[in-house]
Amino acid sequence: MSDEPFFRFQETKVLNLEIPEKKEKTNIRVNAARISERLNQLAAFGLNAEGGIDRSFGSDQDIRARKWLSQLWTHVFEAPVKIDPIANLWVRYDKGQTLKPIVLGSHHDAVANGGKFDGAMGVLLATEVLQTLKEAGYPLRHPLMAVSFSAEEPNPYNISTLGSRSITGVLTKEDLQSAVHGKTNEKITETIHRLGGDVDQLASHLLQSDELAAFIECHIEQGRNLIDSGKSLAVVSGITGIYREKLTLSGEANHAGTTLMPDRHDALLAGAEISLGLEEIVTDLNRNDVVATVGHFDVYPDSANIIPGKVELIAEIRTSDRNVLQGIIQAFSTVIDQASKKRQVGVQRDVILDQNGVPMDAHVQEALRQAIETLSESYLTLPSLAGHDSAHMAPITPTGMLFVPSINGKSHCPDEETKIDDIVKAGNALVQAVIVLDKELN
Amino acid sequence: MSDEPFFRFQETKVLNLEIPEKKEKTNIRVNAARISERLNQLAAFGLNAEGGIDRSFGSDQDIRARKWLSQLWTHVFEAPVKIDPIANLWVRYDKGQTLKPIVLGSHHDAVANGGKFDGAMGVLLATEVLQTLKEAGYPLRHPLMAVSFSAEEPNPYNISTLGSRSITGVLTKEDLQSAVHGKTNEKITETIHRLGGDVDQLASHLLQSDELAAFIECHIEQGRNLIDSGKSLAVVSGITGIYREKLTLSGEANHAGTTLMPDRHDALLAGAEISLGLEEIVTDLNRNDVVATVGHFDVYPDSANIIPGKVELIAEIRTSDRNVLQGIIQAFSTVIDQASKKRQVGVQRDVILDQNGVPMDAHVQEALRQAIETLSESYLTLPSLAGHDSAHMAPITPTGMLFVPSINGKSHCPDEETKIDDIVKAGNALVQAVIVLDKELN
Repeated sequence: MSDEPFFRFQETKVLNLEIPEKKEKTNIRVNAARISERLNQLAAFGLNAEGGIDRSFGSDQDIRARKWLSQLWTHVFEAPVKIDPIANLWVRYDKGQTLKPIVLGSHHDAVANGGKFDGAMGVLLATEVLQTLKEAGYPLRHPLMAVSFSAEEPNPYNISTLGSRSITGVLTKEDLQSAVHGKTNEKITETIHRLGGDVDQLASHLLQSDELAAFIECHIEQGRNLIDSGKSLAVVSGITGIYREKLTLSGEANHAGTTLMPDRHDALLAGAEISLGLEEIVTDLNRNDVVATVGHFDVYPDSANIIPGKVELIAEIRTSDRNVLQGIIQAFSTVIDQASKKRQVGVQRDVILDQNGVPMDAHVQEALRQAIETLSESYLTLPSLAGHDSAHMAPITPTGMLFVPSINGKSHCPDEETKIDDIVKAGNALVQAVIVLDKELN
Repeated sequence: MSDEPFFRFQETKVLNLEIPEKKEKTNIRVNAARISERLNQLAAFGLNAEGGIDRSFGSDQDIRARKWLSQLWTHVFEAPVKIDPIANLWVRYDKGQTLKPIVLGSHHDAVANGGKFDGAMGVLLATEVLQTLKEAGYPLRHPLMAVSFSAEEPNPYNISTLGSRSITGVLTKEDLQSAVHGKTNEKITETIHRLGGDVDQLASHLLQSDELAAFIECHIEQGRNLIDSGKSLAVVSGITGIYREKLTLSGEANHAGTTLMPDRHDALLAGAEISLGLEEIVTDLNRNDVVATVGHFDVYPDSANIIPGKVELIAEIRTSDRNVLQGIIQAFSTVIDQASKKRQVGVQRDVILDQNGVPMDAHVQEALRQAIETLSESYLTLPSLAGHDSAHMAPITPTGMLFVPSINGKSHCPDEETKIDDIVKAGNALVQAVIVLDKELN
């Protein structure tokens, strides 16, 4: 994080905040009503008729959310909001300490017709934790920062985790040159500029390893582990690796009437066997940290009276364990070869993503566990099978994640929900974790 | 066929044809070089860089082919070409006989990037057979006619066998009102008008059962039966029934990372099981007159990182035997129910086509067999698993079909080919069949 400010939003007014009495650290608690109110306020930006949220990167609703958040931060922390070159938003609660800041945050953008909690909850809970510690007057050794990253979600530019990957040097200005909005054709570099960033400044303002003391992200689980266990909190052990292979299956498009069954080279049926085979391999492992999906599957020529001559599909495997991944790929190769031979269908395989799993920092995990135990809560330790900004912060700074339950395991949809009680527990755990880390880290 | 003429193309010049010596009927033979030359001439209209033919209904190449064919017919038969209200082309070789005409023909349009033989060969062989009998001066009791039907193939208006279905009353003016070209948006009624037809005249000019003595179509097999048997000719026993069902599978779109394998309701995998199940049912029957295909298969949202929530597919079954069809549908229903229950995926089933098989006329089949035997050729008796204009002529007049081999079973592609020797054998068989029918029919 550079020292050079990227101010675009100014303070509009400064609230007169009462300075509260200093409290014992274990009594410091977040404000449930305030969190709840702000979740609803932020959800207003992009709320659609189905109850879902449309707030993709660069949209009018994204801009409104950014303005609202900037004003909130400016008011609460009596400090300017900084916009970095990739348009991530940062605020600092600083009493002149010389140690590196501890950072909390997530992202405020949403998938199309997404939910109110994914990302937004993490940003608002970071805000609440900083505000609570500020109000409590707790004598922190480290400054605190909150961040909201740009474009974490899939978006019309086809670049997700834009903010965290760019500011940590994974995505460069050159990588962004050709990205355009799928509908408006606006270049992503222009969008970033509209939001107050400047990709020309990116290379000279990358986050450096020695700038931050730690990063913690609170996020909804998006799966069923917590909700099924009845617990409210999970300490994340690591973020899954993601492997994607594009398979192009080349059979023979032919007349669906006159080509008898034994004479066919049906690419769709080969794709069906391959998709079911992958499911079987991964289901048989019976693990809660491995999944595989065929989500993209296009058939050509896609006509009722023509035998499919070509299929393009993407097979995705998620696991943090490279050995497990290799085993799955080996078994999958056998399935592919069998389908290919049986049907005389050609297969081209292209690995389009092979992202290693990212373990969360042991020290930060331990601080989160201690914090939760201070509150006499129980918790799970879980891998994250979704990608997060934390995966990209981890190489730069000790990083940890805390999960709260997703009701019915749902996310990226209007039904996405987390009980306020669970969010409050997470907030209180984060307060305690910051206090632990503040004591231990230098 | 109405008596009211739809003349649009005029004779351009009349060739001086030599009047040949009268021959014995069994010595009357078609002219191989002439057929070959005309196949190449017609193929020039729409020949593309891949060697395929682009000559869809209403295209410039269709218009050029129509003009060429009309001029050819006018020259050869010294008679006007008639365009009926749906823009089918007709010509009559008539020496004042009072019996109803025997008609030969097929269609001259082609699928996109199609072949030179599908349809075109049948029209040119009809031309050749009539010309050969005319030149031979054979004393026919019946007038002969040749026809080339409009829009037999799938086309941008999404209406195939347009000409035969419309002129026999299956498709009405009202059915055609909403059909437009998928790219140009031209109404099909306007296209028909451009080609010399007039749908306003359709209802009052339908082909009537008492107007024709018989109809015979020669067509490429499009399958492998003939080519694998080494024989040159097949008498078609009937044209397959076609049954199509649209299945809409409703699972749950969900996060491809955080949704563990047992928690998924994957519509793609349900569709895969259903597609493979249908294949297995029909393959197990081990019959050469039944096929089934899933050709259309669309996945939503079709994204690598989202479990497919919805699939729309079309399952097609072809057989002429209603009992066989019912058996397949019953077994298929079991497959669908199992996939639906196993994955808790909803299924909506809509029958979008249920067209009965059409037997070819026994008398015409017998005439074709006699004709082939006269030539000391062997032959197969085959069902047609493709639809043809003959299926729509059959309810109106005794109808038969003759198949010639498709090299490698290929059709609807640039590689579509039939040896000229086989076409010549078919032409000679048609000459003899016309002579047999001319004697027997009244």
